[in-house]
Amino acid sequence: MERKVELKNELKNELRVVKENIGKNKPLVHNITNYVTVNDCANIQLAFGGSPIMADSILEVEEVVSVCSSLVINIGTINERTIESMIKAGEIANSKGIPVILDPVGYGFTKLRTGEVDEILSKVKVSVIKGNISEIKGLLKENNDINGVDVSSTDRELTEKDIFEIAKKVSKIHACVVAVTSKVDVITDGERVVYLSNGSHIMSNITGTGCMIAALLGVSLGGNKDNIFMGTVYGVGMMGVCGEIAANALLKMELSTLKNNILDKVGSIKFEEFMEVLKYEYN
Amino acid sequence: MERKVELKNELKNELRVVKENIGKNKPLVHNITNYVTVNDCANIQLAFGGSPIMADSILEVEEVVSVCSSLVINIGTINERTIESMIKAGEIANSKGIPVILDPVGYGFTKLRTGEVDEILSKVKVSVIKGNISEIKGLLKENNDINGVDVSSTDRELTEKDIFEIAKKVSKIHACVVAVTSKVDVITDGERVVYLSNGSHIMSNITGTGCMIAALLGVSLGGNKDNIFMGTVYGVGMMGVCGEIAANALLKMELSTLKNNILDKVGSIKFEEFMEVLKYEYN
Amino acid sequence: MERKVELKNELKNELRVVKENIGKNKPLVHNITNYVTVNDCANIQLAFGGSPIMADSILEVEEVVSVCSSLVINIGTINERTIESMIKAGEIANSKGIPVILDPVGYGFTKLRTGEVDEILSKVKVSVIKGNISEIKGLLKENNDINGVDVSSTDRELTEKDIFEIAKKVSKIHACVVAVTSKVDVITDGERVVYLSNGSHIMSNITGTGCMIAALLGVSLGGNKDNIFMGTVYGVGMMGVCGEIAANALLKMELSTLKNNILDKVGSIKFEEFMEVLKYEYN
Repeated sequence: MERKVELKNELKNELRVVKENIGKNKPLVHNITNYVTVNDCANIQLAFGGSPIMADSILEVEEVVSVCSSLVINIGTINERTIESMIKAGEIANSKGIPVILDPVGYGFTKLRTGEVDEILSKVKVSVIKGNISEIKGLLKENNDINGVDVSSTDRELTEKDIFEIAKKVSKIHACVVAVTSKVDVITDGERVVYLSNGSHIMSNITGTGCMIAALLGVSLGGNKDNIFMGTVYGVGMMGVCGEIAANALLKMELSTLKNNILDKVGSIKFEEFMEVLKYEYN
Repeated sequence: MERKVELKNELKNELRVVKENIGKNKPLVHNITNYVTVNDCANIQLAFGGSPIMADSILEVEEVVSVCSSLVINIGTINERTIESMIKAGEIANSKGIPVILDPVGYGFTKLRTGEVDEILSKVKVSVIKGNISEIKGLLKENNDINGVDVSSTDRELTEKDIFEIAKKVSKIHACVVAVTSKVDVITDGERVVYLSNGSHIMSNITGTGCMIAALLGVSLGGNKDNIFMGTVYGVGMMGVCGEIAANALLKMELSTLKNNILDKVGSIKFEEFMEVLKYEYN
Repeated sequence: MERKVELKNELKNELRVVKENIGKNKPLVHNITNYVTVNDCANIQLAFGGSPIMADSILEVEEVVSVCSSLVINIGTINERTIESMIKAGEIANSKGIPVILDPVGYGFTKLRTGEVDEILSKVKVSVIKGNISEIKGLLKENNDINGVDVSSTDRELTEKDIFEIAKKVSKIHACVVAVTSKVDVITDGERVVYLSNGSHIMSNITGTGCMIAALLGVSLGGNKDNIFMGTVYGVGMMGVCGEIAANALLKMELSTLKNNILDKVGSIKFEEFMEVLKYEYN
């Protein structure tokens, strides 16, 4: 019990530092991302206190990433041209000690996605892999039930404990933090684990909440490269908390309003409100 | 008169089945579309009960379309890279019996657009062609007054009857349903015709309503491949009805609010409200 | 003093003509722009009374620009494929007397951006260059403090007078109007200068206001190719005025609402309200 209270205080204190570091650094984030949700990703990074740069030409990614505080790689609409740029930017980021966030959208769904994520992971050391459980489980090479970019029906049955075990394995293999977003989000560095249970089921009816989490991580890790684990908790938690507040403000399935409310809230939420709404378990 | 009443009941009953089929299937829709309106298209598909996938790399479109319920091809920002992907995805869709929706944005405007649509139509059997009257008339190869991606001034003079005759011809040539969106929308399979007269003139002041109709069709046909005609009526009608309700809620030219209202309404409208607002003529 | 009053009347009268010309022409604008803010750019052009076309394939830009009233080139997410298209479209625009607006996003930041803008400027005669002070100063080849796509910290110290001197030099070198957007916007044709001081600091927390200014210029110059200077003043002023009204309507950092409010206001503002809110100095 005492241990629990200690951990809660530790979490709150660490998250406060994470938040303050974002404010101090206004991190410049290099994003190589998909064209579906790119505008929302840029806006949420600004709302969260960062400064986004989207650039994907192989002719400039080296220079771009070199001046940034973090790199977000999202393979949502990957193509032959952008693959190269992702790997090159990732390699430069590694050589400069810049955190790399990988969102392996649709891992396991097509040979292209699986192959390219595997190639990225073989060449680039990532700080965080953020995905849904089907994507993360796919990284164990034991998953063969993926049909699209959403979670498969069998994977939907997994318990938090199952998810933690899978995430822990992936974390050990790639020596990185793993964040599985789900009804309960599971974030682990292979030792510690935080479970977050904010959000709303209605969020799955708008596009881009997953991409926006990766975008938030770009900002929080850009300002906190010495605390990747808590930076990840703060970024993932921000989407859950703001999504929940935004959804609760709706009268019905007003999905455009939901998206607008989320962006509004990320820009205006105070730390105390964030901590009050945050539902977590830290072990 | 009796015939009319019968048709109205038939329409209502068929549309109800169309709606229910969407709900049962939550259709996965593969979109190869333009980068201008892609976010709105993804969001409206989610709001309408579908699940969008945007993927345009030639290296994965075969796998992607194979697990989907429909394919939407929109040539709005076509380029050398995406042309190939559209044709390949279309051919696979045909081989699997997956409906293909074609939005020939700017057909007749440039050689690239005309040539590529002609190539798609020569290689891929489409289920529905959805366009404005200039685009659809262009497909008859009799049109030489196209200047941009909007309807030409002479075409704006055409009556509903003229439009139906043109649409019928195109429908026969390509053995598909043709939907002409206009002040009065005309939808025909070459035999039957439905005229829909919802919407608002203010909708032409926001970008993407045309693209979003094609996106809606991806969902409605994805769940109704055995009833392409009524699936098309439901998808086109959804934009007109929700656009009209959204526009009526405005006090002035609040165009961003209009777009948000449309997306909100597609996600929240009930079938009874839809049928009450729908203005149609079925012959 | 009398001279001042005269200038004020002149400005108001000229802006009224600019506005009326937009209304008469409903200018078709060809945009080769970035994929981050493209939807907002299209929507703001519609709200401002224009008609946007986004097309970037080398296979069609010649035909597209030929029927348009203006060309907007924004290098925000330039790549190997789009560079060529920008230059070709610009050359055709020149041969037809169509105004070209250049937004050199991130000039001086990467070799790619600097090199390509230099190439565009060597091959294409532009009507307006619109940028932040770091970008514009970079064009003098005296700037070596650029780190990203935002204004550098030393450049933030420059006075309006400094900015005018820099803009004037660039204007003379490239024989074009130069618009520097900043807390105070500076617009000069090398002789005349207008300072505009609308807007709100909160606007820098949403993405795309810069891109949207270039988009507005596409519309205002498309309808006013014989008055590039005043067309530029009107377009830049529109963002400042609507941004200010939109920001004042907020209770807190509701950033998504801010963007929606701006778009709503551009579509609904009357000329008298515009002139009342506009804060300017004309020399």
